[in-house]
Amino acid sequence: MGIERLLGATAGLATPALVVDLVAADRNIAAAGVRLRPHFKAHKCPELMRRQLAGGDCTGVTCATAWEAEVAAREGLHDDILVANEVADPGGLASLRRAAEHARITVAIDSPRHLELLQGIDCDVLIEINVGQDRCGLDPADVAAIVALAERAGERFRGLQGYEGHAVLLPERVSREEQVERAATILNRLRSVLDCELVSGGGTGTYDLSTHLDEIQAGSYVLMDASYAKVDLPFELALACRTTIVSRNGTRAVCDAGLKALSAEYGLPLAVDPAIEVVGLADEHATLTVSAESELAVGDAILLIPAHVDPTVNLHAALHAVEADGTVHRWPVAAARTAAREP
Amino acid sequence: MGIERLLGATAGLATPALVVDLVAADRNIAAAGVRLRPHFKAHKCPELMRRQLAGGDCTGVTCATAWEAEVAAREGLHDDILVANEVADPGGLASLRRAAEHARITVAIDSPRHLELLQGIDCDVLIEINVGQDRCGLDPADVAAIVALAERAGERFRGLQGYEGHAVLLPERVSREEQVERAATILNRLRSVLDCELVSGGGTGTYDLSTHLDEIQAGSYVLMDASYAKVDLPFELALACRTTIVSRNGTRAVCDAGLKALSAEYGLPLAVDPAIEVVGLADEHATLTVSAESELAVGDAILLIPAHVDPTVNLHAALHAVEADGTVHRWPVAAARTAAREP
Repeated sequence: MGIERLLGATAGLATPALVVDLVAADRNIAAAGVRLRPHFKAHKCPELMRRQLAGGDCTGVTCATAWEAEVAAREGLHDDILVANEVADPGGLASLRRAAEHARITVAIDSPRHLELLQGIDCDVLIEINVGQDRCGLDPADVAAIVALAERAGERFRGLQGYEGHAVLLPERVSREEQVERAATILNRLRSVLDCELVSGGGTGTYDLSTHLDEIQAGSYVLMDASYAKVDLPFELALACRTTIVSRNGTRAVCDAGLKALSAEYGLPLAVDPAIEVVGLADEHATLTVSAESELAVGDAILLIPAHVDPTVNLHAALHAVEADGTVHRWPVAAARTAAREP
Repeated sequence: MGIERLLGATAGLATPALVVDLVAADRNIAAAGVRLRPHFKAHKCPELMRRQLAGGDCTGVTCATAWEAEVAAREGLHDDILVANEVADPGGLASLRRAAEHARITVAIDSPRHLELLQGIDCDVLIEINVGQDRCGLDPADVAAIVALAERAGERFRGLQGYEGHAVLLPERVSREEQVERAATILNRLRSVLDCELVSGGGTGTYDLSTHLDEIQAGSYVLMDASYAKVDLPFELALACRTTIVSRNGTRAVCDAGLKALSAEYGLPLAVDPAIEVVGLADEHATLTVSAESELAVGDAILLIPAHVDPTVNLHAALHAVEADGTVHRWPVAAARTAAREP
């Protein structure tokens, strides 16, 4: 039985609401195997992360923000938490300080300025290397600067990070392999000149390719989305948005999930029911085309698959997670941006 | 002094954070003039809505969702609250019931099924007419169905809604005028056969054009965004996202506001500083191109103008609103989706 079972299992729920098929999520957790440092940013939901950590041999938890790390540490998700991005604002630095009271915190840096900002905070660092994503990270050709930064970090230096974000969504496995090979060459060369406890990186699209890494920062694998579903991966869709039809006129229908329930930068969501097509997203509504014969009526609920999991879950206060026996848990998205406290 | 004054006024703030220039917002409120039913969906922030209501001769408050109406009614924003969309889910219907304890509630409908769902809820209705947006609303040619629905609504029938959402963002005034004229013809014809207390519609882009309406449901005019800034309107930018530089390598920089702080379906945000260009948005970060001479460094803050105001504000717990004298208010986005309670 597929994801459509979620419709009956969550009958009566206020919409729009995110619903999770825990049977599919558990299969994804098993398929991802070991050497994972699961990425909290994908869903920011402590209960789901506990499920991932319980189901695999994980090295720790990855976070995108210091606020996520603060929540993860406070919740006791793991004693080894990595913030896989540079942190430089007063709120983020305060979160790191609080997180460090509960767990070993490691944070990415790519300049001496970061070490200044981290003074007085009990944390280690990974030096981020630009392995082709062209976002953060030092130029891998500038070995002198990398070694100098590691020396300056001193006892805080834990290793390297090289995230192949430019590769993870390439649909063809061979294209991902090519990019991973370049990243591996870069990181292996640096590893030979630096004493690294940890070299971290990777994502859902490269989870089994990036064997040069000590751990993989995969997040999307557990819930998946319409974008990752186009990549040839052994993970299945486990997340949908339950939404209610609020208008029906002929072949046009409108439901109550829009841009504030489903992020649209990767395109439109997909309807689980093949007789329904999403044709537009407004602030609070999606416009649908339905077959003329369809009996879909005002008040009926349908399921939509988000185009992009991370920013979609961030729009919701909770995940409604459905067990194999139909039990529904309400799991808070505790590290959502809007839940962040002011410093 | 322009919007860049917000940078100094909000120094030390945790980022990403939305900051509002109340001097500009006040000018926008004055420029919009009268006959407004300001739309709460634009920012979901009760304090800002109070400012709009105090600064103009308003007929009430417009909401996109029943949850917004519940917050608006509980906060006592106005005694006449319109939910300008159809409501059909259990959570929304429960919110309408609670909202009706505090204010007169009117809700849009476009089928007899809505009247069934609204049974037992103390509210009036506007019959929504499709004036060209092709989303919700009855076909204006089907006068018999419209009259029958009004009769069926009985004492609940308050009037009509015709929202020209397809016109509001057309950059040329003459194009907006053409669409408004069509909508006016439709609604004036129906008005002649129905006893309407209220005919509602309109938006920021048609605020002074839709003279056939009793009130205008404008929202974006108060804060504006990069998309509305391209339309020839007398409103100015009053909202920006404060974000911190977390990485700088040559002409490339990265700041800590991404898709979870700035919605991207209308494109990329604009930097207030002309020496900075936003070239990409990831989950938690924007990638920037800066001039080689720029001294922008890790830890510095910059301002970005959101491409689309409504879904962007929904991503934040609060607005940081700056008065002319530099006082900064922290105003909760109390009706954000993630603040919604379960029924």
